[in-house]
Amino acid sequence: MQNDKELAIFEAGIKLGALYHQWIGTPVSRESAASVESAIEKSVILQPYVEEISVCLDRNLMLPNRFGYSELAGLMFDVEIVTRVGFAYCRARLSPFDGYPLMQVVECRETE
Amino acid sequence: MQNDKELAIFEAGIKLGALYHQWIGTPVSRESAASVESAIEKSVILQPYVEEISVCLDRNLMLPNRFGYSELAGLMFDVEIVTRVGFAYCRARLSPFDGYPLMQVVECRETE
Amino acid sequence: MQNDKELAIFEAGIKLGALYHQWIGTPVSRESAASVESAIEKSVILQPYVEEISVCLDRNLMLPNRFGYSELAGLMFDVEIVTRVGFAYCRARLSPFDGYPLMQVVECRETE
Amino acid sequence: MQNDKELAIFEAGIKLGALYHQWIGTPVSRESAASVESAIEKSVILQPYVEEISVCLDRNLMLPNRFGYSELAGLMFDVEIVTRVGFAYCRARLSPFDGYPLMQVVECRETE
Repeated sequence: MQNDKELAIFEAGIKLGALYHQWIGTPVSRESAASVESAIEKSVILQPYVEEISVCLDRNLMLPNRFGYSELAGLMFDVEIVTRVGFAYCRARLSPFDGYPLMQVVECRETE
Repeated sequence: MQNDKELAIFEAGIKLGALYHQWIGTPVSRESAASVESAIEKSVILQPYVEEISVCLDRNLMLPNRFGYSELAGLMFDVEIVTRVGFAYCRARLSPFDGYPLMQVVECRETE
Repeated sequence: MQNDKELAIFEAGIKLGALYHQWIGTPVSRESAASVESAIEKSVILQPYVEEISVCLDRNLMLPNRFGYSELAGLMFDVEIVTRVGFAYCRARLSPFDGYPLMQVVECRETE
Repeated sequence: MQNDKELAIFEAGIKLGALYHQWIGTPVSRESAASVESAIEKSVILQPYVEEISVCLDRNLMLPNRFGYSELAGLMFDVEIVTRVGFAYCRARLSPFDGYPLMQVVECRETE
């Protein structure tokens, strides 16, 4: 059996993997980025064990193609999520690291 | 070579097919549906030849699962799009028809 | 009302838009590319009005990331599709054009 | 800092969340299901820390729509994955539980 901390870590992984592959490829521009950020946040927060979610998309990478827009790419994501199972919290992050969109556990905490 | 009307029809098909497969599976609830509708509209309007787009998601089909949310499903979409190439306009629709999420050309017009 | 040629064009647009947004972001490598090509072809051929589909993914663009794989990106696609409605056929293509993954009608034909 | 077991759990979560949202919505039939299973497996095995992956899609749920095919839905998935970080292994599963596509850690092991 897994303890609450481990389960919170598992859930954080699920949510980061899920949002990445759900949203990648979405047409986006600097003007519409805020709308996409908000929709992702509102979508992720619905899922079980999610306590907090913040999504920031890197406008600098949104280089307009010949038609003036971009597509949401992995390196644009800077996402922080907090999941909770029982009394255990996991904070995890999706952000660029050395040219790769890395998902990492940032820290875990347990309350009494 | 295709004429403008045919090209407007082609572009309408592209956009409907694209949005369907981009967004299906997104976690959604009655509370977050408006945010998803807005994000889809703002995403589609970025693409070339799109003049108008309206997205309405059927809240009645958003039956909460055991964790209280749903996933965006094909039959939830009621989308109308207008594309334009040159002087030709195409209005097309994605909406449920006999239990299938049908994409159809509604009408085409040419201005002088 | 639209004629068969226009409807074949519409259906070709739907299928190209759909497959692009369904599959983009899939982890892929030069070794697994053939498997993805085959799965896309077998998936698209199921859909109504599709007569032929061929998918070729550009291995040269599959540059390994730090973990040795790539993600399916728009510019990797070279897809040709033939749709038919009644006696009208539409051949359309998704392929890179000037740095953009362009979808185009190649030719239409009507048989008697 | 997380230990290897926790990191293996995190990676298993990422992969299950990712594949679910990458592939859901794909047109599929009983005849093409094996091709999709194979493509998913070959895609997931590319990703870091994945040791084993098996995907079985429930043909019984592939009820043909009016055009004779289905779409890949969450409840069709029966997936088992083994991830490894250092000497720690995590076996996790995505399968239907009480009408919900549940992702669970099955067991973890550490070798010496």
